[in-house]
Amino acid sequence: MLKVAVVGASGYTGVELLRILVSHPDVEICCVTSRQHECLPISQVFPSLHGFCDLICEPLDVTAISARADLVFTALPHKSAMEVIPDFLTAGCKVVDLSADYRLRDQAVYEQWYQEHTSPDLLAEAVYGLPELYREQVAPARLVANPGCYPTSIILGLAPLLKHGLIDIHTLIADSKSGTSGAGRSAKQGSLFCEVNEGFKAYGVAAHRHTPEIEQELSVLATEGVQLNFTPHLLPVNRGILSTCYATLLEKLSSDELNNLYREFYAGERFIRILPGNDLPNVAYVRGTNFCDIGLVSDQRTGRVIVVSVIDNLVKGAAGQAVQNMNVMCGFQETLGLEIVPAFP
Amino acid sequence: MLKVAVVGASGYTGVELLRILVSHPDVEICCVTSRQHECLPISQVFPSLHGFCDLICEPLDVTAISARADLVFTALPHKSAMEVIPDFLTAGCKVVDLSADYRLRDQAVYEQWYQEHTSPDLLAEAVYGLPELYREQVAPARLVANPGCYPTSIILGLAPLLKHGLIDIHTLIADSKSGTSGAGRSAKQGSLFCEVNEGFKAYGVAAHRHTPEIEQELSVLATEGVQLNFTPHLLPVNRGILSTCYATLLEKLSSDELNNLYREFYAGERFIRILPGNDLPNVAYVRGTNFCDIGLVSDQRTGRVIVVSVIDNLVKGAAGQAVQNMNVMCGFQETLGLEIVPAFP
Amino acid sequence: MLKVAVVGASGYTGVELLRILVSHPDVEICCVTSRQHECLPISQVFPSLHGFCDLICEPLDVTAISARADLVFTALPHKSAMEVIPDFLTAGCKVVDLSADYRLRDQAVYEQWYQEHTSPDLLAEAVYGLPELYREQVAPARLVANPGCYPTSIILGLAPLLKHGLIDIHTLIADSKSGTSGAGRSAKQGSLFCEVNEGFKAYGVAAHRHTPEIEQELSVLATEGVQLNFTPHLLPVNRGILSTCYATLLEKLSSDELNNLYREFYAGERFIRILPGNDLPNVAYVRGTNFCDIGLVSDQRTGRVIVVSVIDNLVKGAAGQAVQNMNVMCGFQETLGLEIVPAFP
Amino acid sequence: MLKVAVVGASGYTGVELLRILVSHPDVEICCVTSRQHECLPISQVFPSLHGFCDLICEPLDVTAISARADLVFTALPHKSAMEVIPDFLTAGCKVVDLSADYRLRDQAVYEQWYQEHTSPDLLAEAVYGLPELYREQVAPARLVANPGCYPTSIILGLAPLLKHGLIDIHTLIADSKSGTSGAGRSAKQGSLFCEVNEGFKAYGVAAHRHTPEIEQELSVLATEGVQLNFTPHLLPVNRGILSTCYATLLEKLSSDELNNLYREFYAGERFIRILPGNDLPNVAYVRGTNFCDIGLVSDQRTGRVIVVSVIDNLVKGAAGQAVQNMNVMCGFQETLGLEIVPAFP
Repeated sequence: MLKVAVVGASGYTGVELLRILVSHPDVEICCVTSRQHECLPISQVFPSLHGFCDLICEPLDVTAISARADLVFTALPHKSAMEVIPDFLTAGCKVVDLSADYRLRDQAVYEQWYQEHTSPDLLAEAVYGLPELYREQVAPARLVANPGCYPTSIILGLAPLLKHGLIDIHTLIADSKSGTSGAGRSAKQGSLFCEVNEGFKAYGVAAHRHTPEIEQELSVLATEGVQLNFTPHLLPVNRGILSTCYATLLEKLSSDELNNLYREFYAGERFIRILPGNDLPNVAYVRGTNFCDIGLVSDQRTGRVIVVSVIDNLVKGAAGQAVQNMNVMCGFQETLGLEIVPAFP
Repeated sequence: MLKVAVVGASGYTGVELLRILVSHPDVEICCVTSRQHECLPISQVFPSLHGFCDLICEPLDVTAISARADLVFTALPHKSAMEVIPDFLTAGCKVVDLSADYRLRDQAVYEQWYQEHTSPDLLAEAVYGLPELYREQVAPARLVANPGCYPTSIILGLAPLLKHGLIDIHTLIADSKSGTSGAGRSAKQGSLFCEVNEGFKAYGVAAHRHTPEIEQELSVLATEGVQLNFTPHLLPVNRGILSTCYATLLEKLSSDELNNLYREFYAGERFIRILPGNDLPNVAYVRGTNFCDIGLVSDQRTGRVIVVSVIDNLVKGAAGQAVQNMNVMCGFQETLGLEIVPAFP
Repeated sequence: MLKVAVVGASGYTGVELLRILVSHPDVEICCVTSRQHECLPISQVFPSLHGFCDLICEPLDVTAISARADLVFTALPHKSAMEVIPDFLTAGCKVVDLSADYRLRDQAVYEQWYQEHTSPDLLAEAVYGLPELYREQVAPARLVANPGCYPTSIILGLAPLLKHGLIDIHTLIADSKSGTSGAGRSAKQGSLFCEVNEGFKAYGVAAHRHTPEIEQELSVLATEGVQLNFTPHLLPVNRGILSTCYATLLEKLSSDELNNLYREFYAGERFIRILPGNDLPNVAYVRGTNFCDIGLVSDQRTGRVIVVSVIDNLVKGAAGQAVQNMNVMCGFQETLGLEIVPAFP
Repeated sequence: MLKVAVVGASGYTGVELLRILVSHPDVEICCVTSRQHECLPISQVFPSLHGFCDLICEPLDVTAISARADLVFTALPHKSAMEVIPDFLTAGCKVVDLSADYRLRDQAVYEQWYQEHTSPDLLAEAVYGLPELYREQVAPARLVANPGCYPTSIILGLAPLLKHGLIDIHTLIADSKSGTSGAGRSAKQGSLFCEVNEGFKAYGVAAHRHTPEIEQELSVLATEGVQLNFTPHLLPVNRGILSTCYATLLEKLSSDELNNLYREFYAGERFIRILPGNDLPNVAYVRGTNFCDIGLVSDQRTGRVIVVSVIDNLVKGAAGQAVQNMNVMCGFQETLGLEIVPAFP
């Protein structure tokens, strides 16, 4: 049994990690931490966990945790994550970091969008944890930077087109819509029920911090520098991200040809489902699961391809992908604990 | 492997049965039927099932199905269910019926609230499938009548009080609120998003068909005839029933005493969670699972006890309980396939 | 033109007062206050008001405000309200107080449920502002205590029965469900979108502070001391309260007879709509308006009457009723500014 | 008093027309029609109207209606509208048509996207009823084609840029999201609460019927043929459309410069609110009103402008704009009956 700790367990990403991990046959959760709820059972913080995980929330003590844990999930805000991760690594733990601290390879870019980086030396070692693209590198890694939720949906949606050089990289637009759990569990007025319900808005237009992460990975795929417009919106649903991506095709390709190309690109990938024909995905059909469903249309009139990809932001966009990375890092079957059937409705 | 058929697979109860059954280790789904979607893969009807269950919807042919299936779940409307169940039984299948057709033991009562009964002889044989109360009878049964969603929440909420004779049976009130999936998947104006969203109403006041079912079971518990007021309301959520039950206590008992009494009554019951102290349940914390969470308060001022019980109407109120019954009928561990952790939020 | 100030304008009750008042033909809003948003235009706090009310939020300075305002709406938390109201009265302003500070006539009861009262002498003078019951007293009042949202729905629902002595006062139960705006606009974790959406729960069972207010007014109607069980629940909608009230009838009365009795009792009341026949109300049909819709059913089997009443908690349960009181106090037509047609859906 | 008829009153557009018209000081509603609810009071179909409009639903008899009505609103499906409109015109009524039948000037385009046109001669006469662009032509018109909801949001959002020739017309993308009332009130499975709630999807990608209408009007503004990608999505809210529009700027212009340009373009337009600074609109802040709120950002990195516009699809996207057109056609003040303050939350 792999012993894992969930550091920062009282947020939505934390509880989702626990939901998945308690059903994982080869994992034992040995520790959960929460500053806010120290000494409370995590099942009192989240009654959903009652009877599944009744551990007491501990303070974040690296020495105490690393003495027990083989692998640590850090579900902390950026900056807080990099304050403890180097010590966990030194103590011999593997780390899957769900914050943004090790996702950007370029320290300067990180510091432009976030703040000073306190362990820049680890940036080169950290592996960007999108297994569909970096499985080989994730397997031996000590430190995996779990991708952002928006980036996961956009990168998986555009990878086949960029890898095959089929689109004009100067025409990329990603119009994304995220459920409200992406805003976290801290008490902010903007996240109140009455502020979000029956509302819809864009935010962070041309200024969202996920932009450099998306561009970094799209540039790797295109093997040249890619810039895009990324526009996030806030959806009045608990879970789910849908990204509608636009690009101009360099050659005429039908919807069917593109659909086939996507199927080949993602052949064997359990968590990518290319929808049949002209079907388009719905966040409702991946809820609670690690799937990324993709549909696409080639518009002959305008010469553009429109790719629509959906994920559950808390699963493939966070906790599920983190467990998928853990599976790869620890030599488990990649889908272990993640064969969850979506509950509809 | 037990071979099961899901008859009437294209409703919300049907898809929920499939969601649970595809993860059940000792079950093989051999057949799904749908008149409306005949010849379509069920995973096209419900893309959530894509890759988990891609069976083609068949017509409802008892002979063809009973040749393959050991046990049949009938997720049909009342009246349609009793048109086929006798034949399934004759053909040697076990049946778990999710309709109302075999829940009422008294034919006259059935005919007063529904219509003529076409196989009244089976009413005596059918077992009311609430395993927490009727486990012994369910085990050897050929035909189990799966309880209604409202009745499940109310009967489980009141059983300890009635069994112990602690309340005045002339004072019973059950004020229940159900998510919209309880109204089914047929296209009715009253179930449209814009009619339900941001709305809330009572319906069927003093006239709902679940009333005689509730009274039948409460009367068994009380060993005398019980009448109650049952008031259903329509909640703008997909899943969940919360029942707030009121009764006058015959003797002074504190909340703590009652809480302990409930814990004893349901000791060892995996799917009943009595909340600690004065905690009150929330439908959000049982979503997608077979749990019934119960909280209660004794009001010293008025002498009443208020019991609040919640279930997921599609799981403990339908498909989950049906699988629980199947487990009992087939000698499987009762919780098999039902150890689902609630996803929150 | 009556000059009015809205003290505490940045909550949901505050913005609702402004929404209604800007369309009132005989009112000029001369001042809005907000500690949190001091110096900001209120239309930046609430972009919905842009072009309708662009006043700058002021600090709460009684002298400065009373120099300009004829009437003050205090939309402050309890305790904060009674800290300023005596001074507004001394300065010659009329006051409609939306807090709980002057609703209870008995100082001891107030202090049992809230805290020490700092101007108990005003309790005798304050008029309980339910115009349908206290119109005569509201008209000449200096200080009107605007009723709570839950009490408004329950008192209006039960008044005809109690006034006519038709029910056993020992059998009263009010099971109420409120939209989330009732929890206010302050940033609390329990009011976050993801905590409320797709959830439903009871809270404050047998312990909610509106209980003594409800019992006070029901006792006046019954001319004897009434106790009841009041159970509030949190609905995942922005606006609306639905109260389902139960009581045992002292004599056999049909639904029709009771319906007629309600029509007579509320004859001429513009804001009370008794639904025809057995129709039951829906919060969706009073949204944004000052209406209280009532439906009822007499259950011959159990001898109980079930009354269902709905209001918009922010309008008839707060701001609308406050404006109605202002109209009565200032000799305007009672419906002025309140002839709002519900927007459906 | 202008006498108006609402033909097709039992849909969401119909009830919204009635909501607005009953408060219009210079209008008398003389007739409502509904085939489905013939002989029922419209206030029984929509209890929200109780006490405001209790007219009986009539059959659609042109002779009977035109004998009483000066102006007719046709809130019928396309095809049904053009079956009666020529007769209403012949009978001397003015008509505001809320269907798509007279929006496209080119008969061939209409027939390509819809079906055969049965009164193509009227296409030249019909005026496209977007008063901000066609006020002069609307004033004397007999027949006004009320714009579609999506087109209204997109055309108003892009008009200043196209009129000033500031963007590359080959780069236009409109990513739109609409509330569910846009799907109408007919009972379709895809519009059920459980299908829409907690879901989000794109539909009609590169194939939606509003595309030619949008392109027609953008081409007029650009004075050359414009094609765009228009992608509609279904939002789980009752009301509201948000369109996120992308275009490449032909010259470098800052967000401030563009914001000023929009303010000038729409100076004096009561229903267009250009948000200050970098503020972005939210459908919640225009709910129930005739406003179109617009925010925009110039992205210096990519050279694109992102324009976000929001409307209430039932008001500025349908009934409100229809009343605005009526006001212009009948010489009333354009804002009469439309000075509605948004209710938030």
